[in-house]
Amino acid sequence: MSLATSGEVPYYAVIFTSLRREQDGDGYGDMAQRMEELARQQPGFLGVESVRDASGLGITVSYWQSLEAIADWKANAEHLVAQRLGREKWYASFALRVCRVEREMQYQPEG
Amino acid sequence: MSLATSGEVPYYAVIFTSLRREQDGDGYGDMAQRMEELARQQPGFLGVESVRDASGLGITVSYWQSLEAIADWKANAEHLVAQRLGREKWYASFALRVCRVEREMQYQPEG
Repeated sequence: MSLATSGEVPYYAVIFTSLRREQDGDGYGDMAQRMEELARQQPGFLGVESVRDASGLGITVSYWQSLEAIADWKANAEHLVAQRLGREKWYASFALRVCRVEREMQYQPEG
Repeated sequence: MSLATSGEVPYYAVIFTSLRREQDGDGYGDMAQRMEELARQQPGFLGVESVRDASGLGITVSYWQSLEAIADWKANAEHLVAQRLGREKWYASFALRVCRVEREMQYQPEG
């Protein structure tokens, strides 16, 4: 996982911040990986950045060309299953924010 | 650090994703803590969420009432020093995105 490159503004970001329940072996890791693979195949997907620390706090930001692309991803059948399991099983709490990216600055001197 | 509560949409988010250089004892931790304290004192500050993993990849999202509040924070004298040190010393790369938050959903069943 590294920094995402994205497109020209405006584009859209979904900021998903979450606190995991303390459980190992609950299938979360596999599902998270699968969801990232699936998202990358969606029309309008631009990139994703994701970090979780040892305390269970995580931030995932995905970038999209349009609100329609975000709505399509939200309605993806396999993703709907993951969303349900997230509420029932994996997350103690989360917040999801849909944003319009208005300015962007990248600093990658060694890139 | 936990999930931020914020205000009614629309408000603004600054998504700062960064990759740290591998260095200990370079003053980064102290400065990061000081910047968060300072940001919380800024007019228009709504909240912040920040995660960095063991690989050095970090995402910090701060939330603000207006673009003016973000501009004022960017121009804060002590923050300007930190921004310069970030480029010179602490970060291998970073991206900064200024966004307008258009929709928000919180899930905190135990909150």
